[in-house]
Amino acid sequence: MKIGILGGGQLARMMALAGYPLGHEFLVVDPNEDACAGQLCELIVADYDDPDALDRLADECGVVTLDFENVPVAAVARLAAKVPVKPGARALAVAQDRLNEKNTFTELGIPCPAYAAVDSREELDRAADEIGLPAVLKTRRLGYDGKGQAVIKEPADIDSAWSELGGQPLILESFVAFKRELSIIAVRSDDELVFYPLTENRHKNGILVTSFAPANAPKVEELAQRHARKLMETLDYYGVLAVEFFDCGDHLVANEIAPRVHNSGHWTIDGAVTSQFENHLRAILGWPLGATRAKGASAMLNWIGAMPDPATGLKYPEAHWHDYGKKPRAGRKVGHVTLNASNILTLQTELATFAMALGEQLKEWGADAFNTSRAD
Amino acid sequence: MKIGILGGGQLARMMALAGYPLGHEFLVVDPNEDACAGQLCELIVADYDDPDALDRLADECGVVTLDFENVPVAAVARLAAKVPVKPGARALAVAQDRLNEKNTFTELGIPCPAYAAVDSREELDRAADEIGLPAVLKTRRLGYDGKGQAVIKEPADIDSAWSELGGQPLILESFVAFKRELSIIAVRSDDELVFYPLTENRHKNGILVTSFAPANAPKVEELAQRHARKLMETLDYYGVLAVEFFDCGDHLVANEIAPRVHNSGHWTIDGAVTSQFENHLRAILGWPLGATRAKGASAMLNWIGAMPDPATGLKYPEAHWHDYGKKPRAGRKVGHVTLNASNILTLQTELATFAMALGEQLKEWGADAFNTSRAD
Repeated sequence: MKIGILGGGQLARMMALAGYPLGHEFLVVDPNEDACAGQLCELIVADYDDPDALDRLADECGVVTLDFENVPVAAVARLAAKVPVKPGARALAVAQDRLNEKNTFTELGIPCPAYAAVDSREELDRAADEIGLPAVLKTRRLGYDGKGQAVIKEPADIDSAWSELGGQPLILESFVAFKRELSIIAVRSDDELVFYPLTENRHKNGILVTSFAPANAPKVEELAQRHARKLMETLDYYGVLAVEFFDCGDHLVANEIAPRVHNSGHWTIDGAVTSQFENHLRAILGWPLGATRAKGASAMLNWIGAMPDPATGLKYPEAHWHDYGKKPRAGRKVGHVTLNASNILTLQTELATFAMALGEQLKEWGADAFNTSRAD
Repeated sequence: MKIGILGGGQLARMMALAGYPLGHEFLVVDPNEDACAGQLCELIVADYDDPDALDRLADECGVVTLDFENVPVAAVARLAAKVPVKPGARALAVAQDRLNEKNTFTELGIPCPAYAAVDSREELDRAADEIGLPAVLKTRRLGYDGKGQAVIKEPADIDSAWSELGGQPLILESFVAFKRELSIIAVRSDDELVFYPLTENRHKNGILVTSFAPANAPKVEELAQRHARKLMETLDYYGVLAVEFFDCGDHLVANEIAPRVHNSGHWTIDGAVTSQFENHLRAILGWPLGATRAKGASAMLNWIGAMPDPATGLKYPEAHWHDYGKKPRAGRKVGHVTLNASNILTLQTELATFAMALGEQLKEWGADAFNTSRAD
């Protein structure tokens, strides 16, 4: 079957790499002619709401999915009248807007930070009063990798936050004092709902730099699964859904959802029986799902800006290399590497050796990025 | 870097699937416009000695390799004047001709069946006398999957064998009474030479149907490595070389070499730290090689003729599916599946369950195809 993908970045690329061995072909739409999935899939260079591109997807593909959650919901809804689109417009509408997302968490009884919609300077002042400081002002739409966010630590920061972000729909969220960030990758098909072990994530400047899995989190693992299940059943969701949580010790606070395969699930390519990419495809095709069990312990390191020299990085014979075929650019995710070990202690040692060998490129991440798990 | 591949079958396809995550692109030459690697690589439809196609490879690619050993040696030699071709013309010349191959084994002191060149009916009679019966008459060139072979059990079979194969360069080889077939996948780069664990192979009608790895073969493992090392060093070989052996209990008899990634190494995609496809590319690029360690025990089952229904085959959540995107045709390898387990006993149970679920399609292979290892 030919599978359509809206968005042709590394997620589409890795879906295709997982999907060719299943016997499928891919047709990708992306406005950027350099979209890296185009190196291994047929690429239509067009806007996501281009009617000709959408017609071609509908004509040629048996199912359409997304590598990018910010495609216009109206385009997805029109496309869905002609060909199954999974996940669908409803999940996108929730995930694209932080206010809808927080309202959904609240309706489902999933704890999330205190929040308030902010459309004017007056509303911002009122929200800061209500929610208290510190808090984070965020754009409701199109934020990623820490973009579109301003931390307000004290009243004096309100002016600069407003001048940075004001003039578009915003949301103010209370700042959550958390121990660590955890995420869950859940997969739902017509008759199965399965979960990968929780992943523990480290960010630097708002960008995910390292993930460790399975996270040592027995107290909250089932809770995370319950939250993800509620979301998927409510949203009539098919495919992979990622949910990011703040781990506050005895409870989880939901941060955001991603209606797609997710950076914090990249370790599954080399570290789980079946990767998130393969299971996403199997789910949207209605095929039986593969085992989500972790094979030992894994660490995933993102390459930000540029790939390291493979002559250095691959000297470590256990490293799994993932170059997305993207041009180097500051702050851009251009690849990742995964290390696997039979247990977390061995993994910690391997990670330290590997990070030392890579040296300069990883130095700015700080030592914390390489501490495998804080445990709960 | 762009990597050129002569031949666009499933081996090229799996090389590309392993090579995209290393950041490479691929340009494939194949005379068949349906070549399955063309679904994910740029494909030039042309004969292997087409000068324009070879010029494009030389102009665009940093290195060229092969998915098929029967490309004209002269074309490879001409190409090699402009761009590195690995493995090179010398290894091909040996692998393409069973007489050169047996002579090379003999020169290197690697035991092989007694053999004699046969170019006429008189030579066949003389060879049968010298070598004794049973023996196998084979074409010197272009044999694969048991094609171009006739077993001569007794003198009365000589006529039919000659009328089937006579008129082209032939070789008569003595029939070896062996316990099992083993193969070794070796990888050589500029400064490393590594081996995968031995694989035990089962054939049906001359076609590989199942492989098990690691084979339980402690008595001959080092011997196989010594033989492979001698061949690679003598042939100045870079990349993956497969050597097939008959295991005669206390010694190995070399059957043939394949100067490329090999069907009996397909288990390495899911069952070894680094796949044969990735390590082949790393070797021809001069990159450090990845670990060849087996992760537990693996069984590889080839799909011959047609793929089974994934709704049945993938119900088993541990199965790794590999559909080559080829049209069904009797006797054609169209895909494979790999099962992994922590040890050989568990694997044997899983394999039995899986084979039972697949039922009819595997029945004709016979029970022996599913006996994991005969041990040595």
